[in-house]
Amino acid sequence: MSSAPHRFVTDREKQVELLPWGPHDWLCRPGLTEAKDLQLVRVHMPPGAGHAFHTHPELEEIIYVISGRAEQWVGKESRVLGPGEIAHIPRGEVHATYNIGTETLVFLAILSPAQSKGPAVVDVSGEEPWRSLRSASSVAAGH
Amino acid sequence: MSSAPHRFVTDREKQVELLPWGPHDWLCRPGLTEAKDLQLVRVHMPPGAGHAFHTHPELEEIIYVISGRAEQWVGKESRVLGPGEIAHIPRGEVHATYNIGTETLVFLAILSPAQSKGPAVVDVSGEEPWRSLRSASSVAAGH
Repeated sequence: MSSAPHRFVTDREKQVELLPWGPHDWLCRPGLTEAKDLQLVRVHMPPGAGHAFHTHPELEEIIYVISGRAEQWVGKESRVLGPGEIAHIPRGEVHATYNIGTETLVFLAILSPAQSKGPAVVDVSGEEPWRSLRSASSVAAGH
Repeated sequence: MSSAPHRFVTDREKQVELLPWGPHDWLCRPGLTEAKDLQLVRVHMPPGAGHAFHTHPELEEIIYVISGRAEQWVGKESRVLGPGEIAHIPRGEVHATYNIGTETLVFLAILSPAQSKGPAVVDVSGEEPWRSLRSASSVAAGH
């Protein structure tokens, strides 16, 4: 209907991306807005799903939980986050998000800057210590 | 209880700032997290309150509405935003937010980078065209 870049993004303008760990509503990124320093995407993650350990080598990130419960990892530390709670992920830090609740987990991922020169995401979930970390510390880490 | 910088920020760690247009819950900023590129603050704006026209000369911003209804201005354009809707504010662009609903407006302000060398906020609400814009266009602008 309307052409980018947008100053206002609602359900009409959002860009939906389907990923294995749930649909992503892009609300701010280059091509949709005049984003230079900010990206914003809302993720709807079904119970049992997760975005396994990964890094954004050139991006700083915040995870903000809208609804549901997230098992959130930043490096080797984990917390269960509920609505209104956040994780801060410094640039390049390994992190992961799992929906351990019984309802859909809805969260915002906020990233800066708006673009990467290299790969935006690097999957490290098959490498140690990340591959074994979750099962090894499932009792000790949650608090 | 615990010292900064934090990887996880909940009600225990958040920093509350009382401003004329409502309490601000700081969730990410230098001194609270290791923020370099991202600031995140949740604003609780009572009915009838507003943050009049201003700029952040060195910061790009996103407004994300959590609950309630916002009359949101970006430059000379306005929209009524509800939950899950956003405004994107390029660096230095004049903007304003008013709660035109009957319930508390709760929104996230996302800013980048995490610090300014000059003033973080410049109030332009007393200058034209901003001083007269809202009353002049109250019928025409909302859609």
